[in-house]
Amino acid sequence: MTKRKNIAIMGAGLVGSLLSLYLAKRGHKVDLYERRPDLRRNIVDGGRSINLALSDRGWRALRGIGIEEDVRQVAIPMHGRMMHDEQGTLTFQPYGKEGQSIYSVSRSGLNAALMNLSEPNPDITYHFSRQAMDVNLRTNEVQLRSLETDQTETIQPDLLFGADGAFSVVRGAMQKTERYNYEQSYLEYGYKELSIPATPEGGWAIEKHALHIWPRGKYMMIALPNLDGSFTCTLFFPYEGEPSFAAINNENDLLAFFREVFPDALPLMPTLAQDYFTNPIGSLVTVKCFPWSYEGKALLIGDASHAVVPFYGQGMNAGFEDITVLDQMLEGFEGDDWDALFKAFERSRKPNADAIADLAVMNFIEMRDKVADPRFLLRKKIEGKISAQYPDRWIPLYSMVTFTDLPYSYALAAGQQQDRIMKKVMRHIRSIEDYDKPEVQKLLEKQLIQKEKLKKYNAGQI
Amino acid sequence: MTKRKNIAIMGAGLVGSLLSLYLAKRGHKVDLYERRPDLRRNIVDGGRSINLALSDRGWRALRGIGIEEDVRQVAIPMHGRMMHDEQGTLTFQPYGKEGQSIYSVSRSGLNAALMNLSEPNPDITYHFSRQAMDVNLRTNEVQLRSLETDQTETIQPDLLFGADGAFSVVRGAMQKTERYNYEQSYLEYGYKELSIPATPEGGWAIEKHALHIWPRGKYMMIALPNLDGSFTCTLFFPYEGEPSFAAINNENDLLAFFREVFPDALPLMPTLAQDYFTNPIGSLVTVKCFPWSYEGKALLIGDASHAVVPFYGQGMNAGFEDITVLDQMLEGFEGDDWDALFKAFERSRKPNADAIADLAVMNFIEMRDKVADPRFLLRKKIEGKISAQYPDRWIPLYSMVTFTDLPYSYALAAGQQQDRIMKKVMRHIRSIEDYDKPEVQKLLEKQLIQKEKLKKYNAGQI
Repeated sequence: MTKRKNIAIMGAGLVGSLLSLYLAKRGHKVDLYERRPDLRRNIVDGGRSINLALSDRGWRALRGIGIEEDVRQVAIPMHGRMMHDEQGTLTFQPYGKEGQSIYSVSRSGLNAALMNLSEPNPDITYHFSRQAMDVNLRTNEVQLRSLETDQTETIQPDLLFGADGAFSVVRGAMQKTERYNYEQSYLEYGYKELSIPATPEGGWAIEKHALHIWPRGKYMMIALPNLDGSFTCTLFFPYEGEPSFAAINNENDLLAFFREVFPDALPLMPTLAQDYFTNPIGSLVTVKCFPWSYEGKALLIGDASHAVVPFYGQGMNAGFEDITVLDQMLEGFEGDDWDALFKAFERSRKPNADAIADLAVMNFIEMRDKVADPRFLLRKKIEGKISAQYPDRWIPLYSMVTFTDLPYSYALAAGQQQDRIMKKVMRHIRSIEDYDKPEVQKLLEKQLIQKEKLKKYNAGQI
Repeated sequence: MTKRKNIAIMGAGLVGSLLSLYLAKRGHKVDLYERRPDLRRNIVDGGRSINLALSDRGWRALRGIGIEEDVRQVAIPMHGRMMHDEQGTLTFQPYGKEGQSIYSVSRSGLNAALMNLSEPNPDITYHFSRQAMDVNLRTNEVQLRSLETDQTETIQPDLLFGADGAFSVVRGAMQKTERYNYEQSYLEYGYKELSIPATPEGGWAIEKHALHIWPRGKYMMIALPNLDGSFTCTLFFPYEGEPSFAAINNENDLLAFFREVFPDALPLMPTLAQDYFTNPIGSLVTVKCFPWSYEGKALLIGDASHAVVPFYGQGMNAGFEDITVLDQMLEGFEGDDWDALFKAFERSRKPNADAIADLAVMNFIEMRDKVADPRFLLRKKIEGKISAQYPDRWIPLYSMVTFTDLPYSYALAAGQQQDRIMKKVMRHIRSIEDYDKPEVQKLLEKQLIQKEKLKKYNAGQI
């Protein structure tokens, strides 16, 4: 049994709050320090804030601490993508097999739920409106300023967890250490939250159990359902150029643009102009860094160590999976060598964090661009047939990422291999019926045998 | 004709000093601010400081301002790599065709030469021992502290060039702007400078006209000749592990290690222990960032925008090529739209800077590892034969980078294509004689036709 520690978690967001439950379960005393005020006192508009897609990796972490069912109450299953074309025609594409869904949850609602579940624990204490001013990694001292009283205090926990997001202060301190590897890269796109309110009867104006996409090549809008009947829309749009945030800056242009490219959405968006001109433009950053820990005293987790763009719906899920993996390592952990533990953790997670970061950028291109392409849709259907025919040998990339706990790095590599096979197969495919042609079946069989060989070969090398 | 500007160059290293000559030639007034004291007053040991490999891109920039011959006086041609194996056996591998060489120059010697050539120009003024404390990109104000008098002054040039290296202060200011793309990545290797002194007769103890390599798989040592008969050796060595800088920390271990792995070098290195325990360990960083300019007022150049590891010998050459490209753009530049000019420059150079950064990391693996492999040496010979037989259709990657001014990004792409062809060809090769076999010639001819097709196809698309 490892020694009880005083642990400080910087950031009481989704990852920090869930992590507190896991660490308290292991017998540690946990204090969470959050820059913002308690969001439970400030939820103005119910479930209408930013929402997220919760999928298997996230559920697994919630299940691991026994709160899966609590969260399921506030999650809306989305069975697939609903594409809206420029004429308003709809095409539905399931995400996985029958019964597989991703779940729309409100970020603030889920965060509040996690706080409510953890705060009664006598070993967990939340401190809100505390801004970290300075982190001294050598001494593990953190200087905090209360944004309510303006007073500063210095804490010195045994262990410091940086769950403080893409612009992490704890990581900022690590960046100042010698030979630190760090990368921040921005897409030339920003996002703006817009809204489709509930119908007068309190229902959903478009299909409730889908993630809606208006793919338009160089930009796109998506919408996720909320519990109250509304949808949160997100417009992903270039900062500059034509069209762009820079180019559309008055109500007439905005409405004309929506009328032209999102004609079926516009009538459902009475607050469009207000939303567009009031809400800020969010930026889309990928952060990669290494190492994630400092001398067994501090560890980054979640977005702080691997912020990703939102296009695979995996940011929160990846952060929650960090917690699952860390907890598995704590299971067998004896003694007090936290440095070895943190190093094993970062070594294990880093390739997977890099993989999901790259997958998320790649999926942006698929979502905004390819999902509207008939050839792409046909390919997805053919891939579905392959997966149904060879369930043990072929899991589509999206499913590996979303509906399994296979390592992201494995999913990326296997996905690239499957992509090569799909390219070969699709040369022989003009319609869905072509799938059954003998030459297609023969080619596929041959490719799958090679795939298995490679898999065994790689497994042998690892 | 563009308007005369007051230009400040931060950093009077190789790139800053050469840039001053080019900008003054265009009619501008140039002030250089350098943190270090004037190195011309402090050269203690002649040409014995760090040296660099000057190749075609560097020569071109020197030629462009008429100082090629001045520099040639202090440069030693190196015709190829001389490999030293663990028994001390030598293998020589030419870098290019007959007459093609890279040139060993002393960094400080070349820097001093560039200062001496530019300082008499009435439009160029050097300010030494000036540390940039703060850069305000909006106002273009730079706060400087004199390290001699400790007084601060603020300058406000029309244009600010950041030629201040891998840890650029000007870039530091850009990193604080919105949505700045930035990456720093370190190899897990450091380097240490060591020395082989001149013979008692004042000659070179090993072949003068070669770059010497002691490749050992996980580490390596290299040596470049100096004018005074000495060689500067550089040991590239892991920070941690076995063997490593961490593992070797007393004289006995050091000498035993050198006796075992560098037996022919050890007797030539009487100051080995002193060098090893006195000289610092240098780190090996790659820096990528974008953009390189700020609102037409500030521009990064050289290492400040693209620091690379030294394994392709292209860091200085790439920085000098920046100057050539900028000067070409200034040739046709009229009016005062420096923002457009800087944007065109960074767009043009960025893919090439990225390419040489990646090539340099890749070449580390080749140098420390593969050059000792007989199969690799055979492949190099076969590639030499291909290039001799098809001089218009095949330039080896190393030659494209080193002996042409083809864009680095083109060299990288063409090199990858040639690599694929070489892999196919080498399947049929066991000895150099196999090159003339009909099936090899036929395969090669077919591959070269495909290569040409792809080239035309790509050219058509660009």
